[in-house]
Amino acid sequence: MGKLYGYAGRILRLDLTHRSAVKIELPYDMARDFIGARGFGAKILWDEVKPGVDPLCPENKMILALSPLAGTAAQSFHRTFAMFKSPLTCGYFRSTGGGFFAAEVKSAGYDAIIIEGRAEKPTYVWIHDDDIEFRDAGHVWGATVDGATEILREETDKNARVLAIGPAGERLVRVACLVTDDYRTPGRGGGGAIWGSKNLKAIVALGTKKPELFNEDLFRELVKEQIDVYKRSPLFDAFHSLGTNSVVYQFYTLGHNPTYNFKNTELENAEIWRTEVLEKYVIKHYGCFTCMIACGKKWKLTKGPYAGLLWDFPEYETHWSLGSTCGITNLEAIAYANMLCDKYGLDTISTGAIVAFAMELYEKGILTDRETDGLRLRWGDGDAMVELVRKIALREGIGNILAEGTARAAEIIGRGAEKFAMHSKCLELPAYDPRAAKAHGLSYATSNIGGSHMIGWNKYEILGMPEKVDPLTVEGKGVLAKRVQDQIAAFEAAGWCAFAELVQTAGYGNVEKTMEWMGKVLYAATGIEEFKDPGYIWLVGERVYNVERAFNVREGMTRKDDWLPERLQKVPFPRDPARGQIFELDRLLDDYYAARGWDAKTGVPTRKKLEDLGLSYVADELEKLGKISS
Amino acid sequence: MGKLYGYAGRILRLDLTHRSAVKIELPYDMARDFIGARGFGAKILWDEVKPGVDPLCPENKMILALSPLAGTAAQSFHRTFAMFKSPLTCGYFRSTGGGFFAAEVKSAGYDAIIIEGRAEKPTYVWIHDDDIEFRDAGHVWGATVDGATEILREETDKNARVLAIGPAGERLVRVACLVTDDYRTPGRGGGGAIWGSKNLKAIVALGTKKPELFNEDLFRELVKEQIDVYKRSPLFDAFHSLGTNSVVYQFYTLGHNPTYNFKNTELENAEIWRTEVLEKYVIKHYGCFTCMIACGKKWKLTKGPYAGLLWDFPEYETHWSLGSTCGITNLEAIAYANMLCDKYGLDTISTGAIVAFAMELYEKGILTDRETDGLRLRWGDGDAMVELVRKIALREGIGNILAEGTARAAEIIGRGAEKFAMHSKCLELPAYDPRAAKAHGLSYATSNIGGSHMIGWNKYEILGMPEKVDPLTVEGKGVLAKRVQDQIAAFEAAGWCAFAELVQTAGYGNVEKTMEWMGKVLYAATGIEEFKDPGYIWLVGERVYNVERAFNVREGMTRKDDWLPERLQKVPFPRDPARGQIFELDRLLDDYYAARGWDAKTGVPTRKKLEDLGLSYVADELEKLGKISS
Repeated sequence: MGKLYGYAGRILRLDLTHRSAVKIELPYDMARDFIGARGFGAKILWDEVKPGVDPLCPENKMILALSPLAGTAAQSFHRTFAMFKSPLTCGYFRSTGGGFFAAEVKSAGYDAIIIEGRAEKPTYVWIHDDDIEFRDAGHVWGATVDGATEILREETDKNARVLAIGPAGERLVRVACLVTDDYRTPGRGGGGAIWGSKNLKAIVALGTKKPELFNEDLFRELVKEQIDVYKRSPLFDAFHSLGTNSVVYQFYTLGHNPTYNFKNTELENAEIWRTEVLEKYVIKHYGCFTCMIACGKKWKLTKGPYAGLLWDFPEYETHWSLGSTCGITNLEAIAYANMLCDKYGLDTISTGAIVAFAMELYEKGILTDRETDGLRLRWGDGDAMVELVRKIALREGIGNILAEGTARAAEIIGRGAEKFAMHSKCLELPAYDPRAAKAHGLSYATSNIGGSHMIGWNKYEILGMPEKVDPLTVEGKGVLAKRVQDQIAAFEAAGWCAFAELVQTAGYGNVEKTMEWMGKVLYAATGIEEFKDPGYIWLVGERVYNVERAFNVREGMTRKDDWLPERLQKVPFPRDPARGQIFELDRLLDDYYAARGWDAKTGVPTRKKLEDLGLSYVADELEKLGKISS
Repeated sequence: MGKLYGYAGRILRLDLTHRSAVKIELPYDMARDFIGARGFGAKILWDEVKPGVDPLCPENKMILALSPLAGTAAQSFHRTFAMFKSPLTCGYFRSTGGGFFAAEVKSAGYDAIIIEGRAEKPTYVWIHDDDIEFRDAGHVWGATVDGATEILREETDKNARVLAIGPAGERLVRVACLVTDDYRTPGRGGGGAIWGSKNLKAIVALGTKKPELFNEDLFRELVKEQIDVYKRSPLFDAFHSLGTNSVVYQFYTLGHNPTYNFKNTELENAEIWRTEVLEKYVIKHYGCFTCMIACGKKWKLTKGPYAGLLWDFPEYETHWSLGSTCGITNLEAIAYANMLCDKYGLDTISTGAIVAFAMELYEKGILTDRETDGLRLRWGDGDAMVELVRKIALREGIGNILAEGTARAAEIIGRGAEKFAMHSKCLELPAYDPRAAKAHGLSYATSNIGGSHMIGWNKYEILGMPEKVDPLTVEGKGVLAKRVQDQIAAFEAAGWCAFAELVQTAGYGNVEKTMEWMGKVLYAATGIEEFKDPGYIWLVGERVYNVERAFNVREGMTRKDDWLPERLQKVPFPRDPARGQIFELDRLLDDYYAARGWDAKTGVPTRKKLEDLGLSYVADELEKLGKISS
């Protein structure tokens, strides 16, 4: 092996218990086999987190990992990936957010940070190139993310980048997230609660190193190609001008954006999500490190009780979670609650889904004014939603139960509440109706992280691109779901942004070309020969996906956990274009396991599949645990 | 005349109507006669704003003016002074705030900025040394101060300093203020509404020039003396460790901190203002440009419904206005409402006093749930106070009436409401009871800006320093009130901070020494010979005070406007140490006019007095208007 260009070449192990920071040489094999980012997280979690560990105990770890292209001129590879055993799903989790933190960590000289142990008292870690300091965070413990960030930059360096938790994470709210640059969140799965459990308020990073590239000329040429493709992509303008807001109303008309906690699919006044309404709130575009798509928008509210707000806009998912699934069309309340989530450090998707769940329980009389301290949780009441978000963040009153997430809250509340908990593997479902897009829904059911829209976001079904696939048919959806999951796992092992990949794929007109380009640019940056072969990159995607699955198998998950709520399996979808559809779980699962080469009965990867993926050590361990037979 | 050292030497005239920026040479005579800051404001307003102008019309002007020592190494001379005809008092106003804006304007090359006219649409002015740009502010119009500030720094220079208004100023709330550095506010008198009326959202300044000094060695020596005196001052530690919070409980025990809208002077649970309680909230000290006192404190809330807040602390006055005068001892609600005031751009003193007024009207049944849209304005309810602050800022419901200030709101509401409007010249009274400190109260009644604690803050009566004066006696209080008003006018013509002057005077043990030091340092900076004579500095103080008074006389004010509410004149103070005291208005006024050399019947400065002060041109104009006889 030669020098690992593109990579910083080091992993930083932060042991909070012993306040030790150890720099480990990046293993060449890991770089080759898992590329980076999500791939590194999957591999390190498999190697280091033993089964059965309580996610909120010191023994759990969080891996922050970056793209080998982080901090370079390549577009949109600068996301922070956070992998951990989730306090929500109790399984493998990957969460990702944009901004500038990843590029800064790379410039400081690290490809990944392993966070382990538990600090004795509130702590933040100040990474300044080779210097690592564990510092007291008592003064900012309890503060909102934006407030704490400002203080920490003042006392380190005003150009430093901060990844932090808010009061929700400190209170171990199971849907608490990490936040950077005020708005950018590795949001889902409760990573914020893990930091809270470890007494870790923030990591502050500042770096001065420039990433080295294996073949600068080739790299430059490929980045130029990327920029050209972005520019000519039919999706570029929409993403650039309105970000994910460009599709809110469009997806609503397609039957996504389920309403009233998936009870319905229609909503009076949904026209407020038309682009011509939403664009009026936008006063500024902003992007992550170097990214020309700049999908971030700043919104301003000038009317109503929340007037004065100037903050990041609600993304597509947030319009749904704090909006349509609660029957709410009060855009001002949605924008304000979105801000509260950023300040308190809450995942907007799960938080909104929890509010919808609580509103349905209130409608059914399972929750009453007695439990809510008089807060009337009526469908469509934006102000009540805002107040409940605050209560969840601070674990106040009923918020203390709801902070456990829908699945656990349903168990605590009892009285049939579990029927209304719309989750999969305890992760609240996001803004697409599985009945109206079967492969996409199949990915909710089978995803390694539970009900996530990102793990298998099905552009074929939802956008009809790069080629159109009928979203309502069942046939071939196992193969399609697997294909998309592996694609995304590959793109995310490379640390790429999903929107950006979508823009580039739309520009090329097919995924193969995108994968080929990505392999080449990874090669140009790193010098790893294998990356030149697009087939190899696909293989890495599948490898990552299977290691993640194996992690969950080792934790005890099986086919029974690949599940969607009864409502989606039994109640026919009520309107066009998906009228009458249900989600055919069992049939779709059979198809999927066959496509995956997994055991149809247990949903466990076979030894053959694992060996084909170069994962015989995974197979050996699963066999030792009696999870698979030889 | 020679070069004017210390001064930038220029005034910037910003005509918003014509989008013109004219740089005017600083007149030597004005520098000599009025020193700077408040002095310049008084003189320019007298010269340029004709009587009878509606404060919210384009013809009104705001003068931002600085100390000749702004931006130098001298301690605590870096405040922004804003002078204007007030939309609240309809008379002369001076308002002042700390931070970094003044030093930046000085570095850009200006001693004062005259703001006049009205922009056609929302505008901000970007001052970068000699370059002045009028820029569109449509994108930040409607945004809170902190949000707008961030955007404007992003699009100008991240090191620029911003003075801005919030939604309250835009809505012409008559108690709206200017804000800089998130927390520092030229707060009183409605300056924010003036900017709103002029469509001026912000002034952004960045300068690169270093102030030139007449005698650097002497200047350095005097600054060294100042720092030594600060350090040995008996007040330094208290101001440094807790800022104005060091005296909240102490003043309460002295009978200041009136409670329940001046109806009472006691409050259950007032012990929450003991220093040992307040200091627990402090997580960080911060100061204005170069100031070692660093009286600013950042507070953090970790409990209760406002947990997560990390913001500037409530000052002494704010603990009273949003606290004791509303019967509120909920520190978290006070801190949160204080933050709202900074974000919306509201004067905390007037805003809290308005809430107290509304609470008393609610208690008396003059306001009911019908007028308040169901908001129960009960004494002591911190959450209701927070909500009412929001309504005032946004002019929502009853807030639209209260946004006019207590005096005008009382007129609109009628039904005897005026009895409960605790103001003088329509400026809401602050946190000291005039019955418990007669010279201090006399200054409320006679102040050129209405019920202000700063114009004549009586350290003799309140702190017993530099020498003790019995606060309850009437004798000699006219002379004392005049003396303190002139002192402060002199210190503020020099642009000094009142706390800092207090610290220095306590260090010397007498005011004369402070005045002497200040004259010398002004001379060392500017080279103006007259400043070497402390008697001359005293004279400038009296001159400034008389020009301001003349401005009000020209507007039609007379003795009848030197007034305090009936409650303070007729109801005996209910507890020790001021038990049984009332405020003897007429007697005190007679004494005061005599000390001032003003006409006892009208309260108008005599020609002789004006001529003694070198203000014969003022006398001439008043005579022409029939306000004084020759």
